[in-house]
Amino acid sequence: MSAAALELPATPDFDTWPVDTPVDHVAHQDRVLTVTWQDGRVSRYHSVWLRENAADQTTVNPKTRERVLDLSQLADWPTLTAAWLEDSGAVSIRFAPEQHTLSFHPGWLRANDYSHLEDPDAPLVPTRHWTAETRSDPISLDAGRWLQHTDGDPASDALLGQALEAVIGEGLVRLRNLPTVPGTLDAIAARLGVLRPTNFGSLFDVRAKPDPDSNAYTSIALPPHVDLPTREYQPGLQLLHCLENSAVGGQAVMMDGFAVAETLRARHPEHFDTLTRVRWCFANTAKTSDHVWFEPMIKCDPSGRVTEIRVADFLRGPLQAPFEDIEPAYAALICLQTLLKEPQFALRFTYAPGDLVIFDNRRLLHGRDAFDPGTGGSRWLQGCYLERDEIRSRLRMIRRAERERQVEASG
Amino acid sequence: MSAAALELPATPDFDTWPVDTPVDHVAHQDRVLTVTWQDGRVSRYHSVWLRENAADQTTVNPKTRERVLDLSQLADWPTLTAAWLEDSGAVSIRFAPEQHTLSFHPGWLRANDYSHLEDPDAPLVPTRHWTAETRSDPISLDAGRWLQHTDGDPASDALLGQALEAVIGEGLVRLRNLPTVPGTLDAIAARLGVLRPTNFGSLFDVRAKPDPDSNAYTSIALPPHVDLPTREYQPGLQLLHCLENSAVGGQAVMMDGFAVAETLRARHPEHFDTLTRVRWCFANTAKTSDHVWFEPMIKCDPSGRVTEIRVADFLRGPLQAPFEDIEPAYAALICLQTLLKEPQFALRFTYAPGDLVIFDNRRLLHGRDAFDPGTGGSRWLQGCYLERDEIRSRLRMIRRAERERQVEASG
Repeated sequence: MSAAALELPATPDFDTWPVDTPVDHVAHQDRVLTVTWQDGRVSRYHSVWLRENAADQTTVNPKTRERVLDLSQLADWPTLTAAWLEDSGAVSIRFAPEQHTLSFHPGWLRANDYSHLEDPDAPLVPTRHWTAETRSDPISLDAGRWLQHTDGDPASDALLGQALEAVIGEGLVRLRNLPTVPGTLDAIAARLGVLRPTNFGSLFDVRAKPDPDSNAYTSIALPPHVDLPTREYQPGLQLLHCLENSAVGGQAVMMDGFAVAETLRARHPEHFDTLTRVRWCFANTAKTSDHVWFEPMIKCDPSGRVTEIRVADFLRGPLQAPFEDIEPAYAALICLQTLLKEPQFALRFTYAPGDLVIFDNRRLLHGRDAFDPGTGGSRWLQGCYLERDEIRSRLRMIRRAERERQVEASG
Repeated sequence: MSAAALELPATPDFDTWPVDTPVDHVAHQDRVLTVTWQDGRVSRYHSVWLRENAADQTTVNPKTRERVLDLSQLADWPTLTAAWLEDSGAVSIRFAPEQHTLSFHPGWLRANDYSHLEDPDAPLVPTRHWTAETRSDPISLDAGRWLQHTDGDPASDALLGQALEAVIGEGLVRLRNLPTVPGTLDAIAARLGVLRPTNFGSLFDVRAKPDPDSNAYTSIALPPHVDLPTREYQPGLQLLHCLENSAVGGQAVMMDGFAVAETLRARHPEHFDTLTRVRWCFANTAKTSDHVWFEPMIKCDPSGRVTEIRVADFLRGPLQAPFEDIEPAYAALICLQTLLKEPQFALRFTYAPGDLVIFDNRRLLHGRDAFDPGTGGSRWLQGCYLERDEIRSRLRMIRRAERERQVEASG
């Protein structure tokens, strides 16, 4: 490790920040620090932002790295009275009104340079829409040896990283050749993050049951849907692990709800608008629970990008909306139902025992063809839910470990 | 039970719908049914709405009561060709294009009358804002005998119903005189619904720890905050159960974040707007997970009502926002931090062993004063998270059971 690296100041987090581009020189005004990097980039940071993101113990608790500074307790708005480049490569700043000096790690400053923010909302992995015409099979990875690797092993991380990038980018991945022992899903999920249990349990079994409490537990076809739209926040991810599949029929059907929504917006903007506005009733009609939620079927972020789909015809209760909205709402629904039957959206595949699909339950619509439970064959999937947070955290940790290995290798 | 009640048709759900007001007469046009009730109310229902909400087996699976009808498979938009009142009190309708007759339960029709919707978004329990001036103590209930009752027992339901109405209406309730055995929280939570586990576990212990992974696990003061703002959907509810409290200090501080937000809107509308717009970075800075989420601190629904608060100064990462937003964002933050220190918001109370607070983690800000871990006293809370869905479902089930008892008693 170089002497300079040894002297770099702490960062306000536990991350590793490689110094790919050193600072060339710095300049300051009262409220803005200007950093010129050796590759010519000029970055600007506000004094108040710098003060709140320092890493010393007046700002963060050194053990937890959680902030202890309360800006409103300062005597005045933080300003810069001096700024200079240290021999280590760090940037040091003298702050008023406190009159103390704080140092910033150049790798951290570069990584958090908001003055060159291309997209403040840049996702961890870019979203790629797809149809069955552009994707004839889910992204599929051989996970036969995955569970034999220790968690955190670079080989395990590499496979998991690819899988998570597929789920975040396309909403779907298929891992193949996993064990077919019931409960294996617990071990798999432990590699991903914390499960989200529901009234169907922590792991649920998808197979025909004599006294079903959901259409999923029958052998009938299921139209494309998301699970648990009856919740304020429907689960972000679903895992389905195939243990047995010798039944006739029961092909999986998956479609990219974002691609469907964009097609609806292009062809029928009035119906798209209606479905982003009218709050449908989603209800579970169960004997032992009573989940009801009112929400539009399509949700966009402030910039208009589709971020969530909430469609499940068999889990809707009676629409409660202003009288004049009812017919337009149903016209839009029927238009969507018709669109969902167009063959270009539906990716169809047959589960093999040992397959595990991970998909975004707020984006993908999933369904299945009817299967014949009476031919001696059987169909048994185990499923569970997680939140999207879990796999984003996991992917960040994998990338953090990669950076640590890089910094160590270059030290 | 009366003969008329016996003959009433099924409903599309498992609920009980008392017929408090019978139908007087009905009339129809192609697309609208008009129902005149014996109390003079006139209700109107669209043909397409009626067709989709029928309860026969062409519409719902009789076992699961989940919908099987796909409107887009009908040859045409559903219309009414006849409508009449049955002797049982049911409303029967002849539908085109299918040419079959479907009957509707009058209690269900009345309960779902959207033509008299005062507020299509009417909550289960109205929201009541409060400050420490209007509420000097949390709504408190004696739960000393609660766990001795069987779950579902009317006495248990009555206490739980009161508690849930307090949580939904005011965001906070305190149950008192519960056992102080560690793990009792599991039994309590089982009465409410499914827990939401996190990286801190299913139940977590709040007490000073030698190697804390959160400021919560130290003895320092915690400023008012919500938990897990680093998640896309921060947990809806938090439960804290006091097992021991003999430490000096450590008073609980709770405030109604909705009341704070409304005060901010009234006094400083520009800062309120900024906090509903700028997406702050919430980050967990941990060694073993890496949760990051970008979201405004105040979230409103389309009608402008505040629905969520996301404030936790110690869990914020570096703000990544357009350059010109940084100073206004910090000005708004400092204004909010100052507001949060005004004494009228902070409800302060001391936990007694056996106390359990349940609060809305997307509405209430909670904190604590510093406590002294070195005086021989100890402070030990156990906590867990649930989703808001769970207690809404639970409250609906309690009300459903009440309706069933009423109908049985009047039968």
